[in-house]
Parts: sequence; C-alpha cells; structure tokens
Amino acid sequence: MKSTQTTTLMANAIRALAMDAVQKANSGHPGMPMGMAEIGVALWDKHYRHNPANPGWMNRDRFLLSNGHGSMLHYAMLHLSGYDLSMDDLRDFRQLHSKTAGHPEVFVTPGVETTTGPLGQGIANSVGMALAEWLMGYEFNRPGYDVVDHYTYAFLGDGCLMEGISHEVASLAGTLRLNKLIWLYDDNGISIDGRVEGWFTDDTQKRFEAYGWNVIPAVDGHNVAAVSAAIEAAKGSDRPTLICCKTIIGKGAPNLEGGDKVHGAPLGDKEIAAVRQHLVWDPIPFDIPAELYEAWDAKARGAQAEAEWTAMFAEYRGKHPELAAEFERRMLGQLPGNFSEVLDAAIAACVEKKETIATRKASQNAIQALAPVLPEFLGGSADLTGSNLTNWKESVAVRSGIPGNHINYGVREFGMAAIQNGVALHGGFIPFGATFLTFSDYSRNALRMAALMKIRSIFVFTHDSIGLGEDGPTHQSVEHVSSLRLIPNLDNWRPCDTVESQVAWGAAVQRKDGPSTLIFSRQNLPFMERDSATVANVVKGGYVLRDAANAQVILIATGSEVELAMKAADALAGEGVAARVVSMPSTDVFERQDAAYKASVLTRGIPRVAIEAGVTDFWYKYVGLEGAVVGIDTFGESAPAPVLFKHFGFTVENVVAKAKAVIAA
Amino acid sequence: MKSTQTTTLMANAIRALAMDAVQKANSGHPGMPMGMAEIGVALWDKHYRHNPANPGWMNRDRFLLSNGHGSMLHYAMLHLSGYDLSMDDLRDFRQLHSKTAGHPEVFVTPGVETTTGPLGQGIANSVGMALAEWLMGYEFNRPGYDVVDHYTYAFLGDGCLMEGISHEVASLAGTLRLNKLIWLYDDNGISIDGRVEGWFTDDTQKRFEAYGWNVIPAVDGHNVAAVSAAIEAAKGSDRPTLICCKTIIGKGAPNLEGGDKVHGAPLGDKEIAAVRQHLVWDPIPFDIPAELYEAWDAKARGAQAEAEWTAMFAEYRGKHPELAAEFERRMLGQLPGNFSEVLDAAIAACVEKKETIATRKASQNAIQALAPVLPEFLGGSADLTGSNLTNWKESVAVRSGIPGNHINYGVREFGMAAIQNGVALHGGFIPFGATFLTFSDYSRNALRMAALMKIRSIFVFTHDSIGLGEDGPTHQSVEHVSSLRLIPNLDNWRPCDTVESQVAWGAAVQRKDGPSTLIFSRQNLPFMERDSATVANVVKGGYVLRDAANAQVILIATGSEVELAMKAADALAGEGVAARVVSMPSTDVFERQDAAYKASVLTRGIPRVAIEAGVTDFWYKYVGLEGAVVGIDTFGESAPAPVLFKHFGFTVENVVAKAKAVIAA
Repeated sequence: MKSTQTTTLMANAIRALAMDAVQKANSGHPGMPMGMAEIGVALWDKHYRHNPANPGWMNRDRFLLSNGHGSMLHYAMLHLSGYDLSMDDLRDFRQLHSKTAGHPEVFVTPGVETTTGPLGQGIANSVGMALAEWLMGYEFNRPGYDVVDHYTYAFLGDGCLMEGISHEVASLAGTLRLNKLIWLYDDNGISIDGRVEGWFTDDTQKRFEAYGWNVIPAVDGHNVAAVSAAIEAAKGSDRPTLICCKTIIGKGAPNLEGGDKVHGAPLGDKEIAAVRQHLVWDPIPFDIPAELYEAWDAKARGAQAEAEWTAMFAEYRGKHPELAAEFERRMLGQLPGNFSEVLDAAIAACVEKKETIATRKASQNAIQALAPVLPEFLGGSADLTGSNLTNWKESVAVRSGIPGNHINYGVREFGMAAIQNGVALHGGFIPFGATFLTFSDYSRNALRMAALMKIRSIFVFTHDSIGLGEDGPTHQSVEHVSSLRLIPNLDNWRPCDTVESQVAWGAAVQRKDGPSTLIFSRQNLPFMERDSATVANVVKGGYVLRDAANAQVILIATGSEVELAMKAADALAGEGVAARVVSMPSTDVFERQDAAYKASVLTRGIPRVAIEAGVTDFWYKYVGLEGAVVGIDTFGESAPAPVLFKHFGFTVENVVAKAKAVIAA
Repeated sequence: MKSTQTTTLMANAIRALAMDAVQKANSGHPGMPMGMAEIGVALWDKHYRHNPANPGWMNRDRFLLSNGHGSMLHYAMLHLSGYDLSMDDLRDFRQLHSKTAGHPEVFVTPGVETTTGPLGQGIANSVGMALAEWLMGYEFNRPGYDVVDHYTYAFLGDGCLMEGISHEVASLAGTLRLNKLIWLYDDNGISIDGRVEGWFTDDTQKRFEAYGWNVIPAVDGHNVAAVSAAIEAAKGSDRPTLICCKTIIGKGAPNLEGGDKVHGAPLGDKEIAAVRQHLVWDPIPFDIPAELYEAWDAKARGAQAEAEWTAMFAEYRGKHPELAAEFERRMLGQLPGNFSEVLDAAIAACVEKKETIATRKASQNAIQALAPVLPEFLGGSADLTGSNLTNWKESVAVRSGIPGNHINYGVREFGMAAIQNGVALHGGFIPFGATFLTFSDYSRNALRMAALMKIRSIFVFTHDSIGLGEDGPTHQSVEHVSSLRLIPNLDNWRPCDTVESQVAWGAAVQRKDGPSTLIFSRQNLPFMERDSATVANVVKGGYVLRDAANAQVILIATGSEVELAMKAADALAGEGVAARVVSMPSTDVFERQDAAYKASVLTRGIPRVAIEAGVTDFWYKYVGLEGAVVGIDTFGESAPAPVLFKHFGFTVENVVAKAKAVIAA
C-alpha cells in the first residue's frame, strides 16, 4: 500500500498531464481527468490487472472510459504505467493521426478497449464485455484453470446516467447478475449546462437498487483508500456494482474547480500557473519526476500477472489441448478451418432446395446451417425472437446464472447493439442481435460505432419494408435501407431469396474488419434460379441475375423487388425489349469490386431503372439523371402487403412503363 | 357510479370489438385491449374529460396509448363513447386509408392525440403534453379562470418501460414535478418473447420513486373501482404518478390469456367462440347491445364539460380580451400578424450587417430576432446550451415549479425530441431543441415520428461536420445531413451564412405541416453578398448564388462548403472557365419548386460538381453519373478543423481539378 502522499502525487501527475495536453492542443476536457484522478489511481494502482507490454493479453481486466471526453485521464495513466504511449504522443493530443485522439479510440491507442464519446455507450459496451467474460469462462474454464477470469471496470459520469441506454443496459446487467462488472460513477453534480439539480435529480442509488445492483453510495472520490476499499468490496459482490464517488470536477484548479467552465475548455495559462502553485507542482509542462514514473509503473506487476496466467494456460493446454486451441481460435476471432466448406455446402443446399420462403426464415436456415461449426455465435433479439427468427435449434436462452447462446435482450434495441459491440470487442464470440428494420433508428449510433471501430458485430433487421403490411407506417421502413448504406464501413445486405440470404450470412461472418446489417423480409420471396457462375457472383454484392443479348435497359433491384424486376423483364421480352436484371443485395460490397467487374454488371450507356421499396434518392447514384427509380418517397400505410405494393406502384406495368421511358429518353 | 355488472360489460365490449376486428383483419394485437379493458373503463367512464363531438376542444384531457399495438382498445372506446368512428370503421381495421390504422395515428382518427407504435415514445409525448399544459396554464390562467387545466393520461406496457427513452423522460418529468401527468402501467408480466422475468426484473415502483414520482403499486387492473380510486388519488398528487396495474394479458380468452400467444395474432375462430361462451357474449361479431352504447356514451357529459369551459372562456374573453385572442392564436398554431414583417426585417438586418460568424451563432441571432413576436418559442438543449446557442437574451430556464421558455433537457437527446413532439401536439408552443448533429442518431426515430405526424417540431443540430475539429470521428457527422434528407416530410436546412440561417429559421417557423432540422456549423463562415432577388430566392431551398455567362460547370454546395465553391469559381474564372455556384441549403425545399425554377438553377446539359463535407452518395441525384462529388466517404479524424478540411480534399485546387475533369468528360 502506497502512502497517501504518494497516491496524491500520482493523482496530481494525471492532473498536470491533462491540463498541459489540453492547453497545448488548445482543445479538450480537463475537468473530468482532474476530478477522477484519485479514482484512477485507486483502480489502476491496486486492482486493475493488465500488462502494459501486452495490451492484447487475453485475460486482462477490461477498463472503459464511458465519459470518453476525459480521454486525457486514460492517456495519462497509459503513459505513466508503461504503455507504448510516449510523452511526445501526449504532446500530440488531438492532432491528425496521433495516438491520442480527442476521444479514446480502440485499435488506435494501446490499452484502449473501446471507442467512446457518445455518452452511455461505453457502459453498454462494458456490459457486453462482462457478459462475454462470464460466458467464455463457463465454456472454457476447468477445475483449477480459470483461463477466463477478469473484471470489467467502467468510468462514467452524469451524462452517461441521463442517457436512456444506461437504463437499458443496467437493467439487463442486473437481471443477468453480471457480478464482475464494476462501474465507478463520477458524481460531481455538474454537466455542461451547469449544476445538474435543475434537470437531473434521480436518486441514483435507489434507481440501481431497483435494477438489482449492488450500490456503494457516497464514497469520497478524492480518497484513494476509500475508493480502493469500495472496489475491493465490489469484487466480492454477487451482483454488478455501482460505486458512487462524490467528486469535484476540475479538482486542483483553485479558481475553476467545481464549476461547468472547467469541463470542456483549456484552463488557460493563468489558471494553470495557479494549479501548479496550488499543487506545488513543477512549472515545466509535460514534466513528470522519475519517482512518480516509478510509483505508476505497472510493467513488472503486469508482466508477472500475465506470466502466471501463461504458465497456467500452458498446463491447461497440456490437459485440454483441443480446448486450449479452440480458446485461442475464438479469442483471435479466427473462423474454424472448415468454415468455407460448410458455407459452400449450405449455399449449395439452398440452390438445391429452391425454397420460396420469407428471407427472415431463410436467415434462420442460414444460421442453422452455420451454427454447428460456429460455437462463437451469440444470438439474440430485442423481444422479437419469434418474428426475427434469430434463434436456432440449439439455441439456449441466457438467464441469470444460466449461460447459453441466445440473449433475450428485451425491448432494448440500442442497448442490444451496444452490448453486442462490447461482446465483439471482448473476443470469443460473433454476436448478432435483431429487431424490426425501422427500429434500427433506435440503435443507429451503435451501428455507427461498430463501423467506426471496425468490429464484427452483426445486426439483423427483419420486416424490411411496406411488405410487413398492416402494422402501418410506424413500422414500415422506407428510408432505412438507404440511410444505413450512408454509414461508412457498414456492409448492408438485403437479399432476395434463400441463396442470397445464405451468402450474406457467410459474408458477415467472414468479414473481420467491420459490422454488417442483414436485412430480411417478413413475407415470402420466390427462389431465383442461377447457374453456378451466377451463384459465385452473389458475394460480390451486385451481379447479373438475368441477362439479355444487346440489353436495352438494366433493371436494378434488391430484396423483395428482385422478383418484380424479373417479371418486368419477362414482360419487356414479350414486347421485344431486351432487359438485363441486376440483383444488388449489397451496394457496399459491390462498390469494392474492380472497375471491370462493375462495368460488366452496370455497363455504361445502357439506361437503367432501379426498383426498391424505399426512398429513391440513393439510387440516382446508379441510374443517373437520365434513369428512373421505382420507389417510395412518402411514408407507408396500414394495409395488407399486396395492397400496398400495388398502391405504391410496385407493379409490372409501372416498371415496364418506366423502362420504356428511359429507353426512349 | 355504475354497477360492477355494467362496468364488466363495458370492458367486455372492448374485448369483443378488439377480438372481432383483429380476426376480421387477420392481423393485429388482441392481448393488450383484452388485458387493459377494465383500466380503459375506469379512466374513460369517470375521469377522462373529453367531448366526442369535438376532439379539438382545447382544454380536453389528453389520452395517449404508448403501447400503440393495442390500438383496438382506443378505437373501441372512441366508437363506444360517441366519436365519429363507426362500426364500419372498426370493420375496416388495418385496411388502406381506413380511419383505423394498425397503430393509432393522429389526424387520421378523431380522438387520437399522437401516433404511437415505436415503444416508449408515447409516454415521452405525454411528458411534452403535460409540460405544455403547465406552461400554458401559467401564462394564460387568471384568478377564477383556469382556461388551461387538464390532465394527461398515458397507457403503457412492459415494452415502454424497458426502452431507454422511458428513463430519460420519466427522470425529467420527476425533476420538473409534472403532477398532472398520470401513467397507467399494464403490468402483465408478458412481452413478445414470453414471461419477462428472464430479461426484465426491475423493481419498477422503486425505480420511479427514484425519479421522484408518486407510485401507486399493486392495483388490481381488472377491478374498475380500484383503478378508478388510484386515478382519483393520482389527480391529487403533487408529483407525476405511475399507477401499476396488475393485469392478465388477453383476459377473457380462456385458453390463451396470460401467455405471449395472445399478444399479436388473431385468436382464431375456436378461441373466439370460447371467449363468447366464457363472457356470455352475443355470438354475432361487431354486435354491441344498445344499453352498452348507452353506458359508454360520453357525448352528453363531454358536451357539458366543454360548454362549461366555453362559458368560462367567454367571461375570460370579456375580462382579458387580448389574452383570450392570444390564447386562441397560440393553440391554433397561427403566427402573429406581423411575423412576415419581422422576419423580413431580420433578414434585411443580416444583409446589412455582413457578419462572418459561425452559423450556430447566426442561429442564435435568428432566434433573438424572432423571439420578441414569438412568445410560443419553447427552446432547449440536451445539455449543450452554450454550444448549440439555442438560448436567447430573454430565455428563462424551466425548473421544478418555475415556468420559463427554455428547457435544460439534460443529456437526453431522444427524450428531448419526443417531448418536443408532445409539446407541438398539445398546442400553444413552437418547440425547438438542440444537440450536436451526430447525436441526431440518438433521436432519429422521434424526428421520423414528427415527420410522419406532420407537426411543427424544430430540431437544431450544431457542430455539423469535420469542422468541429479535435473532438474527432465520434462527434463528426459525415453521413448525417444526407441521411436526414432521406426521411420523408422532414425539411432539412444547412445554411452557409447569416442570411441563410435567418431564412431557414423563418421557413421552419412558417412550416405548419411538418418538422424541420436546422443544421449549423461550429466554425465561422463568411458572409455571402447577394442582390435582393437572390436574397428572395434563398427560401426556395436552392438558388444561384453566383452566375457566369455561358456557365461551363455548376458547383453545388451547402453550408460551410459554399465558401469553397465561391473561391473555386474565382479560381476557375482566373483560368477562363465560367462556373455557376448554386447554394443548396435545403434539397427538400428545392425539390418542391416548379420545374422551370429548378431548371433555371440546375440547367440540363451543364456538368456539375457537388461539394459537401459528408458522404457523397446522395449527391449523384444532382450531379448524375457524369458529375463529381467532393465529399467524405470515411469517418473523420481528430485534428484542428483547417487541417481536416485540407486532409479530406476540401481545397480550391481539388474542386478546380474536379470541375475541369467533368467539363472535359
């Protein structure tokens, strides 16, 4: 146990680095790092089990900063404790391509476990990590060998607690009793608009007790020993723990501490000088005494912790070689060696069976086909399991104390998506979760975060258009498919039949560097005949499904509208007009193909008509100013699906007329 | 007080109509109406103050069905109590253009106060209505004349309580002590995936007590007298009230009640026969005995209630004629007679001042210019007031018991937007609220609902691009402007300077039939010179800002990129290339102009380059396959804004090169 003098200096080192870096960048948030400095010391000095030399150690504790604007707290601690993050990196805070971005970014900064900033999502990720830890431990631990055995710690502020997602994920974490999850709440009473009592008067202790959490209230957040004792108590709980730490934002800044002005702007030279005087701190910026580096140094302790685990794992490997190999495969996110074979067989089976079924059912069949070789599948639904069909025969529902492979997330779309992201970041699983496509709106920023983080999180969205029928416009997507396509690095698939559904699932699973959405119909869609070369093209995202010699028009369609395009091509053929049909299940993937392939599908000079039961704007990218789009630029209506498709012009006659018009133009 | 026999029959009438309508439509949700039937009777028979003959009576109680899938409950009660909703309308349940859509839709069905279905938003709307009631009452009531004095009631289920938005809005309603807000919770223990205890174990009473609510727990939801007594108690509370009603989902269906199968599918002929036998109910579908119509009839009571209010209002008008006229103007959503004049003067002042300021500051100036004649302005921010600049000199913060005109919504983006929608639906205010543009993701479905409902809710989004700089990719919008444009009936404005900002505010305020987003920069943007004809064109959404004789290329830009387009046009002119610059602050509004005007701006045959600091896909709609887009198809980076604009190719050189390339193509 270090002396209070030492831990105070350690905390002040955070304060100094935070204020210096923010000042140099002339941008950033000093208030949180200065206010949570002692909490950082309490957790990192005694409890946080990590190895600065190997941020990828599989059994490290996970540490997340859900109040990500306080990034300098984390960067300071990473630097001081021995990570590959130099003082020059800190000096580069918030500069282009530095390792010290404005908000913490995973895979950019060693030791950062997730990208945070959008409030509430870091704590949601932490629930996913604690869930993954529990489930992996259940699957891989053996008597005497707890190869998965770590805590997940998250820092959070008032903002995270005001966000709705905090409710969704805390409620589920409480229900599932994720007892190795520990949140440290920076209860400073200040948010950007000022003292929170005007807009945030929750009894947070009571609220979390209502969720079944262990709450440790009223801890002095500037007392390292008190915080450390609370963490110690939390580690022994049979429930997730919220430690409420009373703090002073910007503590150490004598004229600004305790107010909102210290939250998100540099202190300024004058106040920095006052801080140095107040803390009796070296006047040179970015100058840390050697003895404080020593006090902070976690390299030896970390190396030892990992070495102990590695030795244990070696023994484990000796006794359970297959399990050990499987554990490593899973944690590294590698697919089983026979995956391609299994996928190809599943696709071949779809080709063989020629089933006319809803693509949501085709999706379930695809999951079923892959699940036997993918024990890493962790499925789920936001209370629509029977509609989304994301369960499969071997699904086992996860319950409090009862592990499984399917999560009933409850009606918590945003929480689900952000928890999935945490699961994916932890490693060991390929998470997927589902809701109706329209409610992708609720989870949208978590999809964005998955795309930004380049993680394999799979989002299943069913009931994808007016084709859901009577539930009406509140439930009918019109803008969603296109609007998801606008999120960078998100691969979106809207398959037209069983084959495309299976291929899409395969692509989403094989994609290691980013998330995918899989968008399915409620209603039955007919099987499309393809030769083997055509089947092989599906994975390219867009391909010629039906060609015609000297095609005069290209009909581009996705999902449920591919059938219509095919029928329209028939009708056009009957009138002597040669039409090519392009099925485009994923524009995102199609865009990554080479120019020659793309030109072979969308040949320049042939006029085009796009058909999709959604807004038209996006499709001008493919049909141009001279082309036409059959789509819907209003909201839907409540009526049976066939009535709606006709009402909105999804008829052979309309497509034929549009095709002839673009040819004539 | 009616006998238990009568109220039981009244409840069973709801059950019968719900099961019959769902059966006839072969689609819908019988479980909730059958489970909440007695609660419906308890509220509507004794407490709900409304006039079926005039659903627009200004001082009616508001009733919302947040669990909107139970729409047949509401339709049945509207029909039975005397609204203009016939038995034929009920038979048309879920058919195209009927008055009985799958989920309740405001302005489609008389007596429906808001459109619900997306869970959690109905209760959020109810908070907005209760807030509006309180603030309007403060402003317009006078001793002896409570012209605004009504309750807001909402029904909700487990789904609403699991959604994160329930936390955001209940927390704020508790803080503001909106004591005329009463929620009735259908605590049936069932959600779509089955018995909720596997995924939802909140102690809801404790949770709401933590928010400062009055909670009435464990009410027998099938006992009309008990529910009525709870409502009576709630009406006397000094805090918002949650009445927890224990119910059996689908009660009355002897083989299905209490299970998830009764939630969302027709009962089937066999079970319907069993219900009729069980309830001793007439075997003819859609057949209600005359005495039950009598028991339900609310017309006389409603007419009397409104007549009393009308008489009181007539007296009030006699004593306070200006106040009465202003009250009616406000409730009808009419702008003051001199509004256009004030707006024109404000625009002229911008033209005069030629200020180079951030458009978020221009927005604040615009608010300041209009606020003196718009006491209906109810501003706010999700804890970013000083950044969004949605306050003005006369802003008064709303606090518990202290009315005002600016809401500190806290970090609750989704709740804010849905509360705004409730305020707009109530009438009396033009609500606006703000956050950073990227966090429009959090509130996205509420923007969609505002657009679907065609209400005047104004959403201000600042920090609209990489121009926000160092906060990095988590905070930098790239896809958001385009993705908001995809939502039908949402007008989106991204102004380039003070003049466009003022015009955009004017358009949003003048638009009575739909919501608008106003999207502003963090950074300074230069003033653009315009002649008066050009100033007059701004409101058309897109216009020629700088023309050139025999233009060889059209540069289309929005917001912060208009400056770049103008500089590029200068550079092109220097090289002898004639370029037209089109400023396009609102593509949505531009699309509504006539063909001749549009052709005068975007003349066919002249190649085009679009410039916007966001994803490129959308812009091909305007530049075509042969045009070019200067945009960003990846996420942003953390760095100072000028560094980023250069890094991502927003330079005169790049635009000039692109322009020359499209001319040469």
